[in-house]
Amino acid sequence: MAQFSTRTEQLHSSPIREILSVIDQPGMISFAGGLPSPDTFPDITTTNFPDKYLQYGPSEGEPELRKCISKQLQSIGLNCEPEQVLVLSGSQQGIDLVAKLFIDPGTLLAIESPTYLAALQAFRFFGAHFVELDISAPQELLISQNIPALAYVNPTFQNPTGHCYTKPEREALARTCDKGKITLFEDDPYRDLVYSDCNRTPICSLLKQSSWIYQSSFSKNLAPGLRLGFLVCSPDLIQYFTRLKQAADLHSNRLSQWLVVNALESTNQHENLKKLQTFYSNKRDQFAFLLEKYLSNHASWKIPAGGLFFWLMLNQVIDTNLLLSKAIKQHVAFMPGEAFFPNSKSGKSFLRLNFSHATEQEAEQGLKILATLISEARV
Amino acid sequence: MAQFSTRTEQLHSSPIREILSVIDQPGMISFAGGLPSPDTFPDITTTNFPDKYLQYGPSEGEPELRKCISKQLQSIGLNCEPEQVLVLSGSQQGIDLVAKLFIDPGTLLAIESPTYLAALQAFRFFGAHFVELDISAPQELLISQNIPALAYVNPTFQNPTGHCYTKPEREALARTCDKGKITLFEDDPYRDLVYSDCNRTPICSLLKQSSWIYQSSFSKNLAPGLRLGFLVCSPDLIQYFTRLKQAADLHSNRLSQWLVVNALESTNQHENLKKLQTFYSNKRDQFAFLLEKYLSNHASWKIPAGGLFFWLMLNQVIDTNLLLSKAIKQHVAFMPGEAFFPNSKSGKSFLRLNFSHATEQEAEQGLKILATLISEARV
Repeated sequence: MAQFSTRTEQLHSSPIREILSVIDQPGMISFAGGLPSPDTFPDITTTNFPDKYLQYGPSEGEPELRKCISKQLQSIGLNCEPEQVLVLSGSQQGIDLVAKLFIDPGTLLAIESPTYLAALQAFRFFGAHFVELDISAPQELLISQNIPALAYVNPTFQNPTGHCYTKPEREALARTCDKGKITLFEDDPYRDLVYSDCNRTPICSLLKQSSWIYQSSFSKNLAPGLRLGFLVCSPDLIQYFTRLKQAADLHSNRLSQWLVVNALESTNQHENLKKLQTFYSNKRDQFAFLLEKYLSNHASWKIPAGGLFFWLMLNQVIDTNLLLSKAIKQHVAFMPGEAFFPNSKSGKSFLRLNFSHATEQEAEQGLKILATLISEARV
Repeated sequence: MAQFSTRTEQLHSSPIREILSVIDQPGMISFAGGLPSPDTFPDITTTNFPDKYLQYGPSEGEPELRKCISKQLQSIGLNCEPEQVLVLSGSQQGIDLVAKLFIDPGTLLAIESPTYLAALQAFRFFGAHFVELDISAPQELLISQNIPALAYVNPTFQNPTGHCYTKPEREALARTCDKGKITLFEDDPYRDLVYSDCNRTPICSLLKQSSWIYQSSFSKNLAPGLRLGFLVCSPDLIQYFTRLKQAADLHSNRLSQWLVVNALESTNQHENLKKLQTFYSNKRDQFAFLLEKYLSNHASWKIPAGGLFFWLMLNQVIDTNLLLSKAIKQHVAFMPGEAFFPNSKSGKSFLRLNFSHATEQEAEQGLKILATLISEARV
């Protein structure tokens, strides 16, 4: 037998990827993944790629793309130069790089509960210990003798809850990080998918002293198959991330980078984003209507101001892992809540429903099936 | 200050990437990188991409591509099913995944000396300790009380030496791995770049018991900007690599995967490969002629049967790091030998010269400059 590293004991399969492999079956209605709708993807079928992008490129990313990203971030109040931008092969890569840079076995990490499960898994793999971040009282992190090195948050349309931090919540977290010298890792893939008024100020822009990493993705506002995202960080960190990127995959795909630059520089960019928001906003409203129709007696939820998910708490204790097995037999998939919780088994009665992928008809049929299964489970 | 992981102490900049950033300067003659010649790249300017590849895809890679890869490997004697194939975002990623799976601080790794420097850096970052593999007597690894967990080799047109293992060398290493239960990691990016007869049997195909990983790249035989490679492994390892891939970047770029499938399934594939080999073989011969003309009094080397490099040992002890600083001032870049050696400073008088990127005129001018600098350094 091969002799593995000790961290391999913490190498578990991602439930989300397991489920994604099931939902490809014909006839499956999926509320599981964070799949954006293909209706929102750019048209690339007639693209003529410049062949200079077939050669090796810079680890940091294409200079044009780094410039575009820095400009966009400056326009939302995050002060950063192109030199602070690192292009990523999707924002999952940012999580891997941050874990490498910060996490030893036993390193304390402040994290929302629930939180993005693939981040949880990556941090756990590198041996992180978790302390739950109470966003209504982040200053409690400073009371302990053991102040975390890093705080990972997803403050704008959080995955899975859909919560968008209020202004006071953003300010309190920034103050706490500054006071405790906690490096802030702000993961912000959903910010462009906004449907109702809310504060989306990057928390990193409110920091006065602490080191920070802000990352986002082109998977939700352009297309996930491009596998592109980016991170920007305080100037003290960028050289480390560039080296980590070199060691991880030399540099990101250049054809995708070129496509993204074109999309960001397009005169239609603003209009395309508006279209995307209207499209998903309508999907959200349809889904909210159907949820109300079929599940109002079984669960509670809030209508998210953005993002791609509804987060449901069932009225009675039902193991949503078991519910999923039954649902899949009836061709409906969703994400059970448990995997999103860092330290506890408190997530059994939660489930996450993606509203962006299924058609309205599919959504109606799928939610009807779920309602029936939940009723049966209660008996 | 941010609190980094202890492994960050081992996070050094890659000399090769540092030099690549210099060689973009206009007028620079570069023998430094492993840059393939753009003359060998496929024409993608008129490609019409199917837009289904804009959605998320499978972590393991596109099923069509996994099938192609398995078929090609079977044709060279490596028995593997498509289920054993993992598509990578370039073969650098395979090194990262293997390091995560096998290396704890202090894990013993058998490695050639010199070896591929970016592998050396990745293994060192995860805390590996190195034992030098003597390819003429690999069984010596078994004498020690501390048998390595893993052996990393680059047996076909090795980077940097260009050495191609003989049949007895391949067999002896396979026997040693089997006997010592050493997992073999065979890195084979250059195998298609063959110019003279030699044994290229994958050593992994000679194993009878030991676990193994075999990886290669599409950077050299197609185009590096695509950032695609693959690994195949013994069936006991594949589930771990799939999970590691999920955690690293979810999956590889789908547009590139589609391009590679098209290239591999093209009826011209065999012909394209022949063209590539003829092209590089001519470049090698030209370069060998120029080396003989300018450097035969200063250094010794062997003519490589494949790959992209000449590996030179200077006749006198000259620090090639210092030589590089002087050369760059005269617009010539190369790779000093030191960074390729795992445990010693014995590499100072070596240098690696890439022959595939510079034109014949540039090569002549560059080697002339190097010869002069070496003469001056000797005085």
